[in-house]
Amino acid sequence: MTIKISIDCMGGDHGPSVTIPAALSFLSSEPEAELILVGLQDELRAELKKHKADSHPRLSILHASEVVTMDDPIEIALRRKKDSSMRVAIELVKDGKAQACVSAGNTGALMAVSRYVLKTMAGVDRPAICSILPNQKDGPTYMLDLGANVDCEPHHLHQFAIMGSVLVSAMEGIKRPTIGLLNVGTEEIKGNEVVKATGKLLREDHERGALNFYGNVEGNDIFKGTTDIVVCDGFVGNVTLKAAEGLGRFVKDALTTEFKRNPLTMLGAIIGRGALKKFSNRFNPSRYNGASLLGLRGLVFKSHGGADAYSYEWAIKRAFDAAKYNVQEQLSAMIAELMPRTPDPEVPGITHS
Amino acid sequence: MTIKISIDCMGGDHGPSVTIPAALSFLSSEPEAELILVGLQDELRAELKKHKADSHPRLSILHASEVVTMDDPIEIALRRKKDSSMRVAIELVKDGKAQACVSAGNTGALMAVSRYVLKTMAGVDRPAICSILPNQKDGPTYMLDLGANVDCEPHHLHQFAIMGSVLVSAMEGIKRPTIGLLNVGTEEIKGNEVVKATGKLLREDHERGALNFYGNVEGNDIFKGTTDIVVCDGFVGNVTLKAAEGLGRFVKDALTTEFKRNPLTMLGAIIGRGALKKFSNRFNPSRYNGASLLGLRGLVFKSHGGADAYSYEWAIKRAFDAAKYNVQEQLSAMIAELMPRTPDPEVPGITHS
Repeated sequence: MTIKISIDCMGGDHGPSVTIPAALSFLSSEPEAELILVGLQDELRAELKKHKADSHPRLSILHASEVVTMDDPIEIALRRKKDSSMRVAIELVKDGKAQACVSAGNTGALMAVSRYVLKTMAGVDRPAICSILPNQKDGPTYMLDLGANVDCEPHHLHQFAIMGSVLVSAMEGIKRPTIGLLNVGTEEIKGNEVVKATGKLLREDHERGALNFYGNVEGNDIFKGTTDIVVCDGFVGNVTLKAAEGLGRFVKDALTTEFKRNPLTMLGAIIGRGALKKFSNRFNPSRYNGASLLGLRGLVFKSHGGADAYSYEWAIKRAFDAAKYNVQEQLSAMIAELMPRTPDPEVPGITHS
Repeated sequence: MTIKISIDCMGGDHGPSVTIPAALSFLSSEPEAELILVGLQDELRAELKKHKADSHPRLSILHASEVVTMDDPIEIALRRKKDSSMRVAIELVKDGKAQACVSAGNTGALMAVSRYVLKTMAGVDRPAICSILPNQKDGPTYMLDLGANVDCEPHHLHQFAIMGSVLVSAMEGIKRPTIGLLNVGTEEIKGNEVVKATGKLLREDHERGALNFYGNVEGNDIFKGTTDIVVCDGFVGNVTLKAAEGLGRFVKDALTTEFKRNPLTMLGAIIGRGALKKFSNRFNPSRYNGASLLGLRGLVFKSHGGADAYSYEWAIKRAFDAAKYNVQEQLSAMIAELMPRTPDPEVPGITHS
């Protein structure tokens, strides 16, 4: 069975020079994939020609006359650029002509346009951004929300947990993935008011067998791999993710500097290059590219804006897998089952917006 | 001039076996320091004897009959163990017999007992925990709050910024240290409601020349060293710090594993050991040990519970420097100057508790 993915080829820092080679490489590795390239058709054709891929039976081009830039405010992307490659690519998902969409465009615009075009799923108050971080168990830690929702109520975090659980279950083939609630300590009494009330909701779900709630986890548990999923609000998630990226860059630069310091250390680097390469591969952010925008009436995946072709291909692969494993249908079913309980008006001290 | 520091010798995972050698080492490197060792006197004497330091002109022992363990709930530390080494060490600061106190005891208990014994400074609503992280400019990034206050209002974050500024100014000799407000983006309109309102307060201070507010910073700026100080609430600070520690451990373990994989990579490690050592030194958490509990009527420094003697000595040094550079007096003066403005009842949408 063929799975169709629409690609916003103009999005990101590099546009077609990255998205087209990534698309071609993915096509050749995945015989079930069909890709719809969306963007300025002349640019797309020129790039395809460069790669001697003017025509391919599983590749089509859809012209879109506008481009959402990385600096465009959300309002421009939403109200002015109605024929942007980003929007047209998302509309293909809405119209059932693609099963998932990939874009490296700016996150705020992508989320806003996706919400406007696709709408939010019934039972979900706010879509969330979910991505993967490497952990010491050599597996992925799924973390959400990573920045879509900076002010959250307990029922939002509760919904994130449900969506994360469905995503991991489908993508990783784990029947009852473990959910950790990011907190300042592991005890139930720890945390701010929102997190404490969220813990209560998740414990109730756990007790009736609906979710596999591990309990509170701390910042270091993200990289320990204590749980499959780490749930937090978008403020905490965004800051933590960027801090980790910043530390990662610092570490990489420092290691390079120290090994280049003199002939002896350079020799060490040459002899130990196998170790250094394997080390750096474990933390290679390219392998973790492709964040899900969860909770929409359609699958949208966000690539890092600065992704290269190798990294962008990972984002396409994730979108393809999500479509293949029916993430959207499983989400709908799980949400229909669990959502009537939320928002919970009985959580004390918390006002629901 | 002699500066007296009281040391809770029983606190932390290792107690006197770490605190005593650290104290002795610090004494010999700092001729102006006088240390008061607080704890179970027999244990302290036995440990001193081991180091052939039964008597020292700048060292005294003060017996305290109880010990706050790492697992003791705050209530036990506060209400039951009134003769704990932690409490007695803090009381020395209150009574003017020591100018600062150091403890590796559990953070919650240390903060609670410190607040109870010393009280909060006039003009400060809540004390905060401030610590140092390494950055790519080879300098320290001071970050607060790291966990004392998980639910914050704008005026709390505002006070943290003022306290951080005074601390950095005194400790680093920087006249107008730069303050960054941790956020999900650099633009003024970014962030949750509390952070946006805090930005407004800090911009006002900046405009009238009271503080050097850089603006919003993101997670990666902590390690870039964009600003001298990074301000956030205790939830975000605690999670970010622990996530960074977790990633640091992951990196260290992965590097060790890869270099031990086979004889060739091991040879690379031996030849490149200078580089690996320098690399690991840059991230050595021992060098950053010693968090300040800011906003109390007295100086209290918290060492990591698992600190070794080398690391604990850094915490003593930081406490000594804070006393030497009159952090407490400078804090009082700055807060008296800036605090009458807060809490600001005109910040819309925010209720002050």
